[in-house]
Amino acid sequence: MPRNVDLKDNMAQEDVFKKIVSHCKEYGFVFPSSEIYDGLGAVYDYGQNGVELKNNLKKYWWDSMVLLNENVVGIDSAIFMHPTIWKASGHVDAFNDPLIDNKDSKKRYRADVLVEDYLAKIDEKIEKEVEKAAKKFGNSFDAAMFRETNARVKEYQAKRDEVHARFAKALNDSNLEELRNIIIDCEIVCPISGTRNWTEVRQFNLMFATEMGSTSDGAMKVYLRPETAQGIFVNFLNVQKTGRMKIPFGIAQIGKAFRNEIVARQFIFRMREFEQMEMQFFVRPGEELDWFRKWKDVRMKWHKALGYGDAKYRYHDHDKLAHYANAATDIEFEMPFGFKEVEGIHSRTDFDLSSHEKFSGKKLQYFDPELNKSYTPYVVETSIGVDRLFLSTIAASYFEEKLENGEDRVVLRLPAALAPIKLGILPLVKKDGLPEKAREIMDVLKFDFKCQYDEKDSVGKRYRRHDAIGTPFCVTVDHQTLEDNTVTIRYRDTMTQERVAIDQLSNIISEQVSMKSLLKKLI
Amino acid sequence: MPRNVDLKDNMAQEDVFKKIVSHCKEYGFVFPSSEIYDGLGAVYDYGQNGVELKNNLKKYWWDSMVLLNENVVGIDSAIFMHPTIWKASGHVDAFNDPLIDNKDSKKRYRADVLVEDYLAKIDEKIEKEVEKAAKKFGNSFDAAMFRETNARVKEYQAKRDEVHARFAKALNDSNLEELRNIIIDCEIVCPISGTRNWTEVRQFNLMFATEMGSTSDGAMKVYLRPETAQGIFVNFLNVQKTGRMKIPFGIAQIGKAFRNEIVARQFIFRMREFEQMEMQFFVRPGEELDWFRKWKDVRMKWHKALGYGDAKYRYHDHDKLAHYANAATDIEFEMPFGFKEVEGIHSRTDFDLSSHEKFSGKKLQYFDPELNKSYTPYVVETSIGVDRLFLSTIAASYFEEKLENGEDRVVLRLPAALAPIKLGILPLVKKDGLPEKAREIMDVLKFDFKCQYDEKDSVGKRYRRHDAIGTPFCVTVDHQTLEDNTVTIRYRDTMTQERVAIDQLSNIISEQVSMKSLLKKLI
Repeated sequence: MPRNVDLKDNMAQEDVFKKIVSHCKEYGFVFPSSEIYDGLGAVYDYGQNGVELKNNLKKYWWDSMVLLNENVVGIDSAIFMHPTIWKASGHVDAFNDPLIDNKDSKKRYRADVLVEDYLAKIDEKIEKEVEKAAKKFGNSFDAAMFRETNARVKEYQAKRDEVHARFAKALNDSNLEELRNIIIDCEIVCPISGTRNWTEVRQFNLMFATEMGSTSDGAMKVYLRPETAQGIFVNFLNVQKTGRMKIPFGIAQIGKAFRNEIVARQFIFRMREFEQMEMQFFVRPGEELDWFRKWKDVRMKWHKALGYGDAKYRYHDHDKLAHYANAATDIEFEMPFGFKEVEGIHSRTDFDLSSHEKFSGKKLQYFDPELNKSYTPYVVETSIGVDRLFLSTIAASYFEEKLENGEDRVVLRLPAALAPIKLGILPLVKKDGLPEKAREIMDVLKFDFKCQYDEKDSVGKRYRRHDAIGTPFCVTVDHQTLEDNTVTIRYRDTMTQERVAIDQLSNIISEQVSMKSLLKKLI
Repeated sequence: MPRNVDLKDNMAQEDVFKKIVSHCKEYGFVFPSSEIYDGLGAVYDYGQNGVELKNNLKKYWWDSMVLLNENVVGIDSAIFMHPTIWKASGHVDAFNDPLIDNKDSKKRYRADVLVEDYLAKIDEKIEKEVEKAAKKFGNSFDAAMFRETNARVKEYQAKRDEVHARFAKALNDSNLEELRNIIIDCEIVCPISGTRNWTEVRQFNLMFATEMGSTSDGAMKVYLRPETAQGIFVNFLNVQKTGRMKIPFGIAQIGKAFRNEIVARQFIFRMREFEQMEMQFFVRPGEELDWFRKWKDVRMKWHKALGYGDAKYRYHDHDKLAHYANAATDIEFEMPFGFKEVEGIHSRTDFDLSSHEKFSGKKLQYFDPELNKSYTPYVVETSIGVDRLFLSTIAASYFEEKLENGEDRVVLRLPAALAPIKLGILPLVKKDGLPEKAREIMDVLKFDFKCQYDEKDSVGKRYRRHDAIGTPFCVTVDHQTLEDNTVTIRYRDTMTQERVAIDQLSNIISEQVSMKSLLKKLI
């Protein structure tokens, strides 16, 4: 494919991100929620193109799990669950953010984020010193200036390391007082009021609560699930028994989860209502780390098969593990705002099942016919955020191109299997029977994939509109079509065109836009 | 297809319903939510077969909307919406149930349901009188007894009509005091305590509320949406403009909704958390009733294409219309507990868009280029409950058959396009290379549709298991397969078997299990 110049290459990443956000809105991918009511914080709606792209991403994941793995089945558990489940999982007691208020501005902040931002600022200062020195040293070496720069950098580094160590310890000990002391000692000010007039730090649970039912004794307090995983754990035996599953086996689920994030940022990257795709894989105790490594590989391969470029991915193995895990890694993707987690793979041991045994009083063991004994299985989890995957897809596919003929175009180079519209059907003019002919073609093909009829504006403009939403193929119906039943097919990525018979279209397009073509890459 | 005897035909419908509920659990279709914690009222989880069936039903609806209609597009709006939206829609003020407590049992009831149950009991009494008389009259006619029966029936009818009239008026006027008076006057007792010691009747809003965000000024009270429709209305202009839609056009959405039902009953028919598939069709004012009739036809055709039997459906046109509607009908399906609404088609006028204009202060008008003027579109809605559709599908497909050879079988005669598993792949024995050969077949076919490998128990037992989950095809791999690459294919509905070449399988099965085959019936 002839690669055109990407104007994005010379843009600041911040500007690229802004362009992506506005492209998502302008072309019906993502709208701010409740926009006519001035929006709702950290909640977004998917528009007519966004919902198709999102559904295709979900299908890619679902099919890769339940079609390709003989021993992985799905489930769809409810958002509402018994409240004791969140005691057992640890969320009632430990799913908290430390919050602090500034008494002058009345603004509330996450105390840990204030410290993180402070540390990031020191890092910036260090970088600037080094840059400044590098510029000065460009022509000559000045030993005195070098020593001076060096001293300043070392001072910054010492400060950073000291604060970082205190901060890590405070978090580890859940020491809220020490967290506040760090903020005071570092003289961190409120970005609004500019003052250091801080309240105490308090823990704030991130689960949304609501009241269910109504009896004269009162209602039951329930939570909106903060993760889909627990719906799998509590159904472990139901699925194992009714599905006659043998260990090792997995249960996959796609569904909404909710977290009352105080600082929600970066568009759809961190939302209060979001969608997860989680798979819990149940294995023999002692075999979990082999399976952890296996799923790490499988999941990375799945991401790379999307073709966004292997360099955009990296693992981030966790040094500090959650209380339930004995191994954990993130798959990070290079977003316009840096490498960020899109998926986590965690070896969760038997923590969840054992805890539910304890809290529910029900046995959650598996009888292994090969070992002839019962045990509580260990669990390896793969957990991916649909919305983050969506954002990574848009970010990787968005190009602003300067074409050879001097024109500009914005194109979403989406994998064909993910594109919202597979085929644009364009009559050259709105008369002479061309619209009727175009719709005749559509009436055959629409059963196989999503087509869009478009008759307005010049064909060139229509191509641009389809480029902008990532449509991989367009066909133009012209006067010759009426004579010989051929159309011009135009390919999004290469922009080349060729004349093909109408009855060839299904063959040319179906295979390329099918999910099967993407799944085949995983073998 | 040779129709076997259905044992269900002689069962009480109540027993049939119980069988369906337990079948759903036993075969991984529907589990009670949080079961190991003794459940959560009126919430259910979909198991490994249920999720596939549900996804297929959703796909059938979605494809029929957005693939087959050039002017219908999708959307996926969030569950969380700005709280003023529910003021505008009328839900904050009017989405209530009237509740009453019994002071002795401390149990809470819906006051209207108490009266409805009372009326139903009178109807039962009338029926019994008539039955009793019919039996007695069987051999001879007794004028005195006839008069006596007639008098009793007339008395019951008069009472019923009187209470019904008062009840209808009380509901219409939202007169809670009168509602209580009816309960007192009819001497309705609490089913638990048996006493008539009732509290006042109070209104209880059915929306679930939660608190979003956290500022030092407090959090924002938001609701879990009680319907998905409002997410479409508030995005009307976003979709119309970015999608360049021309009236008439529709916006379709599938998503969760939540209602804090006090009396939730009948399995997944009425749940607190449920899923809707709604399509709002925007039309010129004055043309809404034509479109209402059109969609009424289209939607009925869609249901009937599932092949459950045309006699199982009927319309129920509403006499009494909601404040926002100028026409409304239900499509009812014959459940084991009677004809019940599975879908509603409503002509909602411009109520919603006008109300959002008023409450948001934003114009929600459409400029019609053909009429050369702006107006607020009228809306025709089609609204279907996924879970009810699921229940109707199981109910229509569940058969207990006495076969010609004297054996019994339970079979789900699901449309092939909806079946969770399309093909069972069964090696005759677990040795001689048959499992390997079976998996070889699976490795080719699994990209096209959901296959399940099964090697345990006799082939006959394995057929029964696949019958019970509705698998339309099974193939058996035997020793001959190793020689000539043929297998025995067995058809669920006819139970006939034939020998076919392995490379013919995809052709035989793919077309029949495809969604396309179902969609084609809609033309």
